[in-house]
Amino acid sequence: MRENHFASFSTCGAPEQVLEVKSAPVREPEEGELLVRMLAAPINPADINFIQGVYGIKPVLPDSPAGLEGCGIVEVSAAPGFEPGDQVILLRGVGSWAKFLTASADNFLKLEEKVDPTQASMLKVNPLTALRMLTGYVELKPGDWVVQNAANSGVGRCIIQIAKIMGVKTINLVRRAEGLREELTALGADIVLEDGEEDMVKKALESTGGVRPVLASNAVGGDSALRLMDMLAPGGTMTTFGAMSKQSIKVPNGFLIFKGVQLKGLWVTQWLKNATRADIEFAYGQLSIWMASGRLKQAVDSVYRIENVNEAAAKAQEEFRNGKIVLRLGE
Amino acid sequence: MRENHFASFSTCGAPEQVLEVKSAPVREPEEGELLVRMLAAPINPADINFIQGVYGIKPVLPDSPAGLEGCGIVEVSAAPGFEPGDQVILLRGVGSWAKFLTASADNFLKLEEKVDPTQASMLKVNPLTALRMLTGYVELKPGDWVVQNAANSGVGRCIIQIAKIMGVKTINLVRRAEGLREELTALGADIVLEDGEEDMVKKALESTGGVRPVLASNAVGGDSALRLMDMLAPGGTMTTFGAMSKQSIKVPNGFLIFKGVQLKGLWVTQWLKNATRADIEFAYGQLSIWMASGRLKQAVDSVYRIENVNEAAAKAQEEFRNGKIVLRLGE
Repeated sequence: MRENHFASFSTCGAPEQVLEVKSAPVREPEEGELLVRMLAAPINPADINFIQGVYGIKPVLPDSPAGLEGCGIVEVSAAPGFEPGDQVILLRGVGSWAKFLTASADNFLKLEEKVDPTQASMLKVNPLTALRMLTGYVELKPGDWVVQNAANSGVGRCIIQIAKIMGVKTINLVRRAEGLREELTALGADIVLEDGEEDMVKKALESTGGVRPVLASNAVGGDSALRLMDMLAPGGTMTTFGAMSKQSIKVPNGFLIFKGVQLKGLWVTQWLKNATRADIEFAYGQLSIWMASGRLKQAVDSVYRIENVNEAAAKAQEEFRNGKIVLRLGE
Repeated sequence: MRENHFASFSTCGAPEQVLEVKSAPVREPEEGELLVRMLAAPINPADINFIQGVYGIKPVLPDSPAGLEGCGIVEVSAAPGFEPGDQVILLRGVGSWAKFLTASADNFLKLEEKVDPTQASMLKVNPLTALRMLTGYVELKPGDWVVQNAANSGVGRCIIQIAKIMGVKTINLVRRAEGLREELTALGADIVLEDGEEDMVKKALESTGGVRPVLASNAVGGDSALRLMDMLAPGGTMTTFGAMSKQSIKVPNGFLIFKGVQLKGLWVTQWLKNATRADIEFAYGQLSIWMASGRLKQAVDSVYRIENVNEAAAKAQEEFRNGKIVLRLGE
């Protein structure tokens, strides 16, 4: 009987401290389940928050698995529509930080396009968040402008790439532009500015020829969100999906009443829960085509083996990285 | 030649200080214009803010007329579709605090139903704001719940009455419930609570049988808006049309991301600018039918002659009134 190795925690807290790698026999699938040999899984802010107990989904303790996304290959299928050898991503549930995962086939999505496993492991959250941001709130036409803060984040880089594919132009706010301007421009960014630099809104509007963005993507909150609302066109929408500053958004009433700014929220987990299977397959189908063709790519800072998950989780919380921290799981 | 008397100001400031009643000959209408004998006009917060120079529309100085709404009778028509004797309300522009008003016919709307002039003079802003609030943001079904702060305001009372007509239930937050509970209940309010009283959200949900409101109407901002968002159903909408507290709205990011609350703004002036003439006529037609039948009525605290506009404006800014301050204009 084969041994499985997986990351788990018995109490909420700092992931680098509370995570343990456990082992147990690989469980054979029951009717409707799949046994998946996992290949790779990223460490996202949502994973960190989930282990800290501050995410929108709470762990079931005293023994919760970890890892909200990842990619693998079906080893044994006890469900229709899946064959051994199929490449799948984890769509729902927890437990991707494991060498093997046995779970209901509904929790997995089969990729029709063959995608590099490391890239595919990061398909579920960031690219979908970026796609929903650019298609779910404002009907963007080619030539329209979008502004985003945290433009160098995983989602931010996906927004740049998908906007480029859609012909939509982006104003990208980052904490430090030095060195990043060239990198983000190479990805497709139109304008890169430091978030909060002097005359930021004025500089942005000079670069767009006076055209204001109709959509603002907010992953920071606090003062940065205020600057986004200030820059938006009248009637524009600011959609929030993250709160890196941990500061509430302060909304001057006049922005709502007289400027007609709309504020919305985006949580892909909620979208995945409510969307039809067809909508979900369509969205990931589109994203995996872009990923397979190299037009949509996420940066990887470093790769760790699951045995070193504590070190990897610590690294994932460091401020300066050049991309995602990814766990390499099975071979 | 007849003399007109009208309120005007040459500098922005406290209305009771800067307003002057001037006189000038009545101007005969040119092609496309109407000469209207004004009957009544209310003093709204928007009028006060306009004169203070802090409204979304700025006065053209050094000589601006005052009064954003009012009702009158056409005396002379130089425009198709209007006859002498027609009852009209001012739809656009400024200058209703006058015995006579000569302006483009586009600025007026003819009422098909005969409505008491004092009530008709208050048709443009509050009832339309209430109607837009209840029909423009969330598709409300009979039995749905709506929560509002400043429930005793002019708009608040219209919301109670129109919601009642629609079969929609209301949770009404007021600063002091004493004496008001019976009054608002008689208008059609289902629940009346003090805004910020202990366990307010819990008490409200006990009264609704645990059903959360899908729409929140916010005229206050600040902490009161936070309580509205807290009470809202997941995915619910808070629409802001006023900011009596003069405090920004602080939005915890989780309300947007995880609860999916949406924030929007309502400014009827903007709506009137963008809506088609047919939409505007339909909305006011509906409201004037309700008004003519007595199902929609606004409270009047006291009536002043235009000669006493300074005193009237001072009174309109007092905290405790039992309804609107109205100017009686022509006879």
